[in-house]
Parts: sequence; structure tokens; C-alpha cells
Amino acid sequence: MREAGKVAAIGADLGGTNIRLALVDPEGGVSEPYRYPTPPGGEAAAIVETLAQGIRVLQHQARAHGIRLAGCGLGVAGLVDGQAGLVYTAPNVAGFQNLPLKKLLEEKVDVPVTLENDANAAAFAEYWLGAGRGVSSLICLTLGTGIGSGIILEGKLLRGASGAAGEAGHMVVEAEGERCGCGARGCFEAYASATAILRDARAALARGEGTSLRELFGTRPEALSTKDVCDAARAGDPVARGILERAGRYLGVGLASLVNLLNPDLITLAGGLAAAGDLLLQPALAELERRAFAVLLCRTRVELSALADTAGMLGAAGLVLADGGHLWMPGR
Amino acid sequence: MREAGKVAAIGADLGGTNIRLALVDPEGGVSEPYRYPTPPGGEAAAIVETLAQGIRVLQHQARAHGIRLAGCGLGVAGLVDGQAGLVYTAPNVAGFQNLPLKKLLEEKVDVPVTLENDANAAAFAEYWLGAGRGVSSLICLTLGTGIGSGIILEGKLLRGASGAAGEAGHMVVEAEGERCGCGARGCFEAYASATAILRDARAALARGEGTSLRELFGTRPEALSTKDVCDAARAGDPVARGILERAGRYLGVGLASLVNLLNPDLITLAGGLAAAGDLLLQPALAELERRAFAVLLCRTRVELSALADTAGMLGAAGLVLADGGHLWMPGR
Repeated sequence: MREAGKVAAIGADLGGTNIRLALVDPEGGVSEPYRYPTPPGGEAAAIVETLAQGIRVLQHQARAHGIRLAGCGLGVAGLVDGQAGLVYTAPNVAGFQNLPLKKLLEEKVDVPVTLENDANAAAFAEYWLGAGRGVSSLICLTLGTGIGSGIILEGKLLRGASGAAGEAGHMVVEAEGERCGCGARGCFEAYASATAILRDARAALARGEGTSLRELFGTRPEALSTKDVCDAARAGDPVARGILERAGRYLGVGLASLVNLLNPDLITLAGGLAAAGDLLLQPALAELERRAFAVLLCRTRVELSALADTAGMLGAAGLVLADGGHLWMPGR
Repeated sequence: MREAGKVAAIGADLGGTNIRLALVDPEGGVSEPYRYPTPPGGEAAAIVETLAQGIRVLQHQARAHGIRLAGCGLGVAGLVDGQAGLVYTAPNVAGFQNLPLKKLLEEKVDVPVTLENDANAAAFAEYWLGAGRGVSSLICLTLGTGIGSGIILEGKLLRGASGAAGEAGHMVVEAEGERCGCGARGCFEAYASATAILRDARAALARGEGTSLRELFGTRPEALSTKDVCDAARAGDPVARGILERAGRYLGVGLASLVNLLNPDLITLAGGLAAAGDLLLQPALAELERRAFAVLLCRTRVELSALADTAGMLGAAGLVLADGGHLWMPGR
């Protein structure tokens, strides 16, 4: 974001926990991102207003620096029909059901808005700017409140028959297992997401297990975060370590299904929970190795995303820039 | 197979239970297929010899009718590297480990042999001659001794980074569940394959449950087949019905993972076990509907393959004919 007189896009990411926005230019330069908490409580109007405020701030910023806006790309953690500008459903963003989010936003801001599934956006970011530069096929798993995935095969984002494919978080890993936010049982995201980790941490506390989390939980139960669990685990808390190890093992189970089925060149782990790093990755890779065919696994790299929780925001902007013909990507 | 003076390919399919071979022409005409039992007991040499015998018979038949052979396509129920002519591993065809099957066969027959994963071949057959004509993306599940899958996305067979992608049978459906032939636990094929059904039937007998299968099992336990279980279920045997319903429910679990992840236009069910028909399909579709996102599922058809257990053989020949430029396929 160093040069004026250039084109850029607003990248925005709407997750279950945070809303992130920044200006992104065709070279991958990024302005200092804004981050807001996602308004809780099922109020779509509050979320739309928060997004619109952020977009207006960045529009103003672009104007002040003489940057022309190609548009705003918005990644949403849910089932999205980009063509129709519709969010079908977003189980982890309360209140979104068949919401015409593009139209609602464009009534409030002066820039065209393109909706995209957040994990599709993150996958595009990996392919454009991240570990996926130069590969043919990759899957980006976004580990957060839920688990999303974007799938790029032979350089093309997989959209499926409905435009909303890539719901890796709702592959089944335990057929009669934990209830998932989607209503079904035993989904991958019911075992390896932030929601799963917090559920297990609360259950351990309710069972009276001895853990340093008790102090935090006693005074502000609703604020217990996966960062707290990770911090406790790094400080040696055995309960916290056990919870993360279990989530990591299930992450490995889901990875094994993806490697055996799709055998991409690369799987990257993005989203806020990727900050857990080795606490999740080590048990995940051990489990993956136990379950995936060696001849497939030896051709699939699995890595933490270097883009981490900005991947969705970067990719949403990148897709707008690519559609506008502003990106030059070798091999595409 | 009506016209002489034409080109054709030998299509062959090597499964855990049967070997099938026939001549296939570019219009999809097929000679009366030969079917041999797959030699059991881990003897790769016996399998190679059986295949070679079948190929020689069809070569002779082609010569007698003045048909020019474009080659022999062989679908194998296992991990196959077609480029290298190698079967990495075939858990349900004993004795195959890094077997240079193409070379071994070409030493015995006078026609070039192309190896292909059997489910990839079946998927191509569906796309060429079956329910997949005119669709953009399809998955063919081959339900037999194991579960294989071939995945066609936007008209292209997905091969993955190793050339051997598409192991849907080894997606995980019960992380700590039944031991699978691949060595891992809880794979899809450990729950919804012929092997799973026979395991459950034998377990029911061992528990002394009252079922009409007891008579069959008492006199020839090793010969109990899924057809016996299906026949008993159709005759009203509650134990047999329960076993098939459980396998069908797990079939639905695996289908849900595929619909949520890939959302293809079509999923077809081929392989010998597809003959169970509604005994499997009804519980599978009910389970699928409970688990898949409605917006995705409404765009994915799920059907029994009309090609059934000839799909692998037809597709293996079809891929040879396509590679030789003998197929004209609209939209490809």
C-alpha cells in the first residue's frame, strides 16, 4: 500500500468472532487492517452496519490517498451464492438466513460488493500470496468458530453445482458423535474448531477437573477463549493440553479424509485457531500419518498458513482484483 | 459390437471378487462379458495369468471378427499409477504391492495395457455412457469388496498429486471405529462395503441371532455372499434387513461428506453391491438428507448406476478409446 494513483480493493472478512477489513493492492500490499468484534445475538442489521462503517472508513482512506477502488470483496463464514449476492446460511454468524447481504451493503456504501465464502477467499489468498504460489491444487482449511474450506484444483476454485461447495467442516468424522452447529451429528467442525475446544474446556471445568482455566472461567466464563486454552497448555496445564491434543487428533482425521479423497499438492491451515500452532499440528500430523495412504500423503504438504487470520480478507480482495483484470498470476 | 472392420478396446476390471473382460467399441457396444472369480490367497501370478488368458481370448475374438484393437484398459481396485504401469497397493486384491502389472501382462499378451483405478474407470463410463452424460461433475462410488471412487470435476478426471486420488472408501466416518483393510480405523468402506456387510452378518450369527442365514452359514460359511444377505432381507429376515439398513445409513454418511465437500451434479453408485438397490439406497438417502446442507443437496442427484458392475470394464476400455482419439464426446 505504498503507492498512490493505483488501484486497490477493499478486502473484508466476516467470521463468527471477528470482522476484518483492509485495502489490498494488486501486488499484495495491505493497509493496516481494522478488526471489530462480530456483533453477537442474531442481529443481522448490526452486522451489516458494522461492515458498512468499516467499508466507509476504507473508502475515505482510499480517496484521501488517491487510490481507485476496484470494489469490495467480502468473505463470509457460511454458505454463499456470490452470483445472487446471497448468504444462504451462516451457522456461526447468528441471524443470517437467505440474507441478500450484497444488496443490503450496497444500499449503505458507494462501492460494488462481491460476496464469497470466507474459506474460498482464503484459499485464493494462499494461491496468490501464500504457500500455494506455483502449486496446481490446494485446500485451505479455515479453523475458527467453525471449519471452512476452499478448494483449488488445477488452478480453479471449486464451486460445485450450487456455487457453495467446499464445506469440509461438515464431513462426518464420528457418525453418532457430537451435535454440530449445522444440526447434524459428528461433523469435523464439531471436533476440531474453536467451538469444539471451548465446549470441551467447559465440560472439563464442569466435571471439576483440576486446571488453571478454573480461575479464568470462574470470573468470566463467557470470555474463555481458545487463546486462554492455548496459553494454559503452553504453561503446562495437562487438561488444556489434552483438550488441544484431542482437537488436533480430529484435525488429523479430517486431513486424512481430504488427502485420501483429493490428494492436493498442499493443505494450509488458516483462521484464528491456526495460532495454536504445534499444539494442534503435532497430534494432527501424527494422526494423518496413521490414516492416509503413504503414496498419497508423500505428495501432499500440510502447513500452517503464513497468512493466518488475514487470509480471508486478502483473498476476498484478490478475487475482486482478479475479476477486474488487475492481477497477473503466472500459470493462470 | 455389431460391425466388423472397426476399432475396439478390451475393457477389463479386476475386483476383489471378480475379473470381468469384454470388447468395447467407440459407440459403447459391448461383447458378451467374460467373468472369472478373482484367484484368492495372495497369488499375484495366478491373477496375472487369469487376466492374460481372458485378454488372449478377446484378442482372438477381435481378430476373428476383423476388429482392430486400440489396446486393453484394465481397471484395478487399488492405488494405481497409470503412468508407471504400477499397482501401489490393492488392499482387497491380495498379493498386490508395488506390482508392475502393466509389464507383467504385456509379457504375456500382444496388446498394450493401460492401468487405471477401477473407480476412475467406472466414473468415466458414467460420464461417457451412463447417467453422467451431459453433466459437468460427477462422483462414481464403486460398492464392492471395498469402496472406490472416481471423481470427474468440470469434465476432467481428478488424479491428484500422486495420480491416485479418489480414495473415498478411506474417508473416516467413525474415528475410533471398525478396523479397515487399509490398516486404519473407521474408514467409510469398513461400514458400507460388501466386506462390512458380511462381517456384520457373521457377527450376528456368532451372537446366535435368529436369522434364515443360519442354514446357509452352517453348511458353507465361507460362501456367504451379500446376495444371500439381500435375498434374506427381501424375504423379510429382520437380521438381514437390519444389517443392510446399517450399511445403508453409513453409505448416507459418506454421501453427506461428499455432497458437503464437493457438491457434484451427480453421484452414481456402481459395483456389485449396488445390486442391493433400495435395501441400501433408502436408508442412505434418508441419512444423506439429515446430514447434507439442503442448498447443496438440492443440486446433487444420487442414483444407482444403470451400468452396475460393468462400469469399470466399460470405462477402462473407454479411456483407452478416448486416449486414442476414437471417442467423440460432446462438451469435452
